[in-house]
Amino acid sequence: MAAPAFLRIALAQINTTVGDLPGNRALVEEAYARAIRAGAALVVFPELTLTGYPPEDLLLKPSFLEDSRAALEQLAPRVTHGLVLVGFAEPSAEGPRNGAALLAAGAIRGVYHKCTLPNYGVFDERRYFEPGQRCPIYALGPWRIAVNICEDLWVRDGVPRLQACEGRANLMVNLSASPYHARKGPERERLFVDMARDFRLPPVYVNLVGGQDEPVFDGQSLVVDASGTVLARAPQFASSLQYVDLPLPPSEGTGLRDAARDGDGTAPCATGGQSEYTRGALRLEEVPLDAELVPEVCGPTPPAHDPSGDAAQGFNHVQPELGDEEEVYSALILGLRDYVQKNAFPGVVFGLSGGIDSALTAVIAADALSPEAVVGISMPSAYTSSSARRGAAALARNLGIRFHEIPIHAMFDRVIEDLAPLLAGAEPDVTEENIQARLRGMLLMAFSNRLGHLVLATGNKSEVAVGYCTLYGDMVGGFSVLKDVFKTHVYKLARWRNAQTRGAGAIPEDTLTRPPSAELKPDQQDSDTLPDYAILDPIVRALVEEERSPRELVASGFERETVDRIFRMIQGNEYKRRQAAPGIKITPRSFGKDRRYPLTNRYRPRQT
Amino acid sequence: MAAPAFLRIALAQINTTVGDLPGNRALVEEAYARAIRAGAALVVFPELTLTGYPPEDLLLKPSFLEDSRAALEQLAPRVTHGLVLVGFAEPSAEGPRNGAALLAAGAIRGVYHKCTLPNYGVFDERRYFEPGQRCPIYALGPWRIAVNICEDLWVRDGVPRLQACEGRANLMVNLSASPYHARKGPERERLFVDMARDFRLPPVYVNLVGGQDEPVFDGQSLVVDASGTVLARAPQFASSLQYVDLPLPPSEGTGLRDAARDGDGTAPCATGGQSEYTRGALRLEEVPLDAELVPEVCGPTPPAHDPSGDAAQGFNHVQPELGDEEEVYSALILGLRDYVQKNAFPGVVFGLSGGIDSALTAVIAADALSPEAVVGISMPSAYTSSSARRGAAALARNLGIRFHEIPIHAMFDRVIEDLAPLLAGAEPDVTEENIQARLRGMLLMAFSNRLGHLVLATGNKSEVAVGYCTLYGDMVGGFSVLKDVFKTHVYKLARWRNAQTRGAGAIPEDTLTRPPSAELKPDQQDSDTLPDYAILDPIVRALVEEERSPRELVASGFERETVDRIFRMIQGNEYKRRQAAPGIKITPRSFGKDRRYPLTNRYRPRQT
Repeated sequence: MAAPAFLRIALAQINTTVGDLPGNRALVEEAYARAIRAGAALVVFPELTLTGYPPEDLLLKPSFLEDSRAALEQLAPRVTHGLVLVGFAEPSAEGPRNGAALLAAGAIRGVYHKCTLPNYGVFDERRYFEPGQRCPIYALGPWRIAVNICEDLWVRDGVPRLQACEGRANLMVNLSASPYHARKGPERERLFVDMARDFRLPPVYVNLVGGQDEPVFDGQSLVVDASGTVLARAPQFASSLQYVDLPLPPSEGTGLRDAARDGDGTAPCATGGQSEYTRGALRLEEVPLDAELVPEVCGPTPPAHDPSGDAAQGFNHVQPELGDEEEVYSALILGLRDYVQKNAFPGVVFGLSGGIDSALTAVIAADALSPEAVVGISMPSAYTSSSARRGAAALARNLGIRFHEIPIHAMFDRVIEDLAPLLAGAEPDVTEENIQARLRGMLLMAFSNRLGHLVLATGNKSEVAVGYCTLYGDMVGGFSVLKDVFKTHVYKLARWRNAQTRGAGAIPEDTLTRPPSAELKPDQQDSDTLPDYAILDPIVRALVEEERSPRELVASGFERETVDRIFRMIQGNEYKRRQAAPGIKITPRSFGKDRRYPLTNRYRPRQT
Repeated sequence: MAAPAFLRIALAQINTTVGDLPGNRALVEEAYARAIRAGAALVVFPELTLTGYPPEDLLLKPSFLEDSRAALEQLAPRVTHGLVLVGFAEPSAEGPRNGAALLAAGAIRGVYHKCTLPNYGVFDERRYFEPGQRCPIYALGPWRIAVNICEDLWVRDGVPRLQACEGRANLMVNLSASPYHARKGPERERLFVDMARDFRLPPVYVNLVGGQDEPVFDGQSLVVDASGTVLARAPQFASSLQYVDLPLPPSEGTGLRDAARDGDGTAPCATGGQSEYTRGALRLEEVPLDAELVPEVCGPTPPAHDPSGDAAQGFNHVQPELGDEEEVYSALILGLRDYVQKNAFPGVVFGLSGGIDSALTAVIAADALSPEAVVGISMPSAYTSSSARRGAAALARNLGIRFHEIPIHAMFDRVIEDLAPLLAGAEPDVTEENIQARLRGMLLMAFSNRLGHLVLATGNKSEVAVGYCTLYGDMVGGFSVLKDVFKTHVYKLARWRNAQTRGAGAIPEDTLTRPPSAELKPDQQDSDTLPDYAILDPIVRALVEEERSPRELVASGFERETVDRIFRMIQGNEYKRRQAAPGIKITPRSFGKDRRYPLTNRYRPRQT
């Protein structure tokens, strides 16, 4: 058989839905059919393709695991051409495993079980999975394909180093579901470039795309050649079938055993007197496949480009990276759209106060869905400024979303009067403020009950951190778009979005410049209660995302009294966050599965 | 030195608070001083004594780990007599470790690091801790004390078998924090009895007591002798300093090497050609201590009994076990009391509807706190029956709790009128029902804002499972007493509690016998929407606690339509539970950290 020049790989960056075994299988079959038509010989899908990611405690249901395995068995016969690598959850006597199945010639030809199980941040994989120990290299014609899954690739000295040892593999394929946070793309890319050079083989990385409750998966699947050059980069935040023609490494026609010569090759495999093909508990496994079964992979040249133009991204296309604000904005769009659509809501509804948070939420919602599916409700009280009221109406008009105004004066007065036996004799305090916020929450829920729309909470990370928000009031909602976006970042995104349209942006200038206020009592401003957001936000980031101690912050120049107060506010408001709506994760540490704090917590850091 | 007859051990079953390093240290010092006065030579505390359990993501704070280690170092000089085993979290270059420190003669003499890290159910220990690998046996005079921590003891073939091999230990001490569920005590006891007989040594088990957010730790510390006889059992749900005088095993004056003779002794230690004192990654470590430093442990006889009568439980006292209802009721009392007191609430407030759930909540609250700290609020609407209203008032009177009535008719009418533009033209539906529930939630929160009282949600596990409750309405609350108690169980507990008082019980008979109703529309009954609780509860238990599939339930005799409907209701109401108040865990699987379900979840089990 002549040495083939190329392997055409399809990076099937699809948007799966957790639990939707038939739906996910249909997505796989559709992408597979398109990829084969476009001449691909190897089609790679993301981690846990068939179950969606992360399935969480669905994995504790024996029936779910059986159904996942059954979905794989129903899929296999469809794979009549080329190779498919697809993720699924596999039941076994020892416990569930996170699997990547190799399908070819109508059957399951091998299964790799993820060895490196992340159990930090949003991840709970050791709760669910038994780790694998066998690390396969599939040998097919001139190709030696090492398969691994997500976290495996981030612990380079584990599975990848074993698979790459002595140049036994000439291609490494990783099925991934890597949750997005801002600027994670370049971080990943550096990792793969270093790895490609270190192991002298091209890593092929296929990442999930889509929103699943809090995490968003950003796609941006990647292929890097053995010299560290990026051969292909799929788009962020969009489904994509990206093709790459991968040349066989030159030496000896295969590149195999090549890395062994440079002195680096053998050492990594040897571990303490054991076989040189093990690393700790891991064991290398070479799986020969009959090349006759998969002639596509071993053919001399790749097929012609699909004349239908199906491969819209082109071949070996390197999608440019997004700018900082566009990237985060796109993550918020995808996270919201997927939560709404995967849960089949007809639209969204939220309070439009005339403030910056609800304004940005409105713009994102209109961009993510369609203006007709978005309902903004203004609920003015005696303390609502006319500028806020005008701002809300103007924004709704600019966006073309549905808009209602329901004043809450009368019902507020009624409640205060009926509560007089309790409230009489005391000065008004946060009690009265919260009643306003809770009446608004109640009205939004009434809209939701009648229309079926999802209520959006509009709070940002700064207020959620310090509890500057009303539980069951402005915190009401099934989903929270800006939950992980700091207030200072909210302004940046709003200005960026305004700049994307010609002429005046959708968000009125007054909304961008008026000092932030909850407008729950006369002349109230956020700055009555909180330090400037330019001071608050870096303190919250340091305490929450970086787990720095108040002592360190004071040493680095922040005012002790401010830092201590913020620390106490964050800790004292855990109970609110416990009952908060889920929201889109865009930072390395969001309030959600990322951060698991006790409610009962008397910790006070020691002072120096 | 003469062979001593006894080792006097104090089981210091204390109620720690998460994060309260100085407070927990003070509890340890106080219990230690009492125990030494009572002649104890070894004082054992629960797992993670100094940090409280579980500290969750506090463990990701470097400053918290440093402060935990510092608390241990401050404690050590106080231990001038006898031995202390105390738990703490220890920072290390590899990551935090769950430690048990041995203190003696004013210093830290050794630290064991937990090897077996549970990561299922409510546990996330692999998120936080690096596992230990060294399994110490402390040799002191005639004693060989094997120390381990909680989960270690539940995986008998790991740490305990290694420590017990060849009869190298003659005492095993376990520091524990084992969350309660109904009837877990006998399960534990069987485990320890089997282990004692198997390893021919007495296990000493000291369990945490107290509530921490959702889990309750029930204490019931235990000592079993080498023949499997229970020597001492501390009370459930109460702090206790329980003493036990443990005789040295007879043969050769020490019992050491004894187990090696029966043929069982050597085999368990040997693992595949490695040293016989390792087991997998675990390594046995013998730590000799200078007997001169700790004369109390090696003295010929135990000191006389403390004449002050401090050891109120007596010596070698075997506390009888509680009956089924009393046990669960006591767990609820402790869980509520600790949440209220550790978070420094002056009292609790909740809606007293005249129904059974709020009635049982009221009785528990009055028992857990004091009647003066409990406020029940009746908030009747047009649909509230006079019998419910009377029942609420009668219960409050019987308990002597504070009671207010605030009708919601007028505010409800006002809201409906102001919402007319939205609601007009449609038949009343769940929208109007929920407005009533949400007005009530708002009023309770107003009370809470003004008084500082904690709002209790009164829902039960049956309704939380199927979503028969209103988010931001009756689900309002910072804590949920009955969240893990099925409706049928609520009735049982109510009847049991009524039977504890002479004459008529606190809960009116009518409340116990009237068909359950949410009273949100005319003549509404739970049975309009739900199957009988006698059918619903076992289905929910099977689906939620046992993860059985609808198919299995149908095969075992339940109606397919009912099972499928309940399955869909459970899955479709995950979003409500995500925002629910935390509540006390009393079953093997509660709604909380025990069960982590995706919100976006399209799983539909296959039909047969």
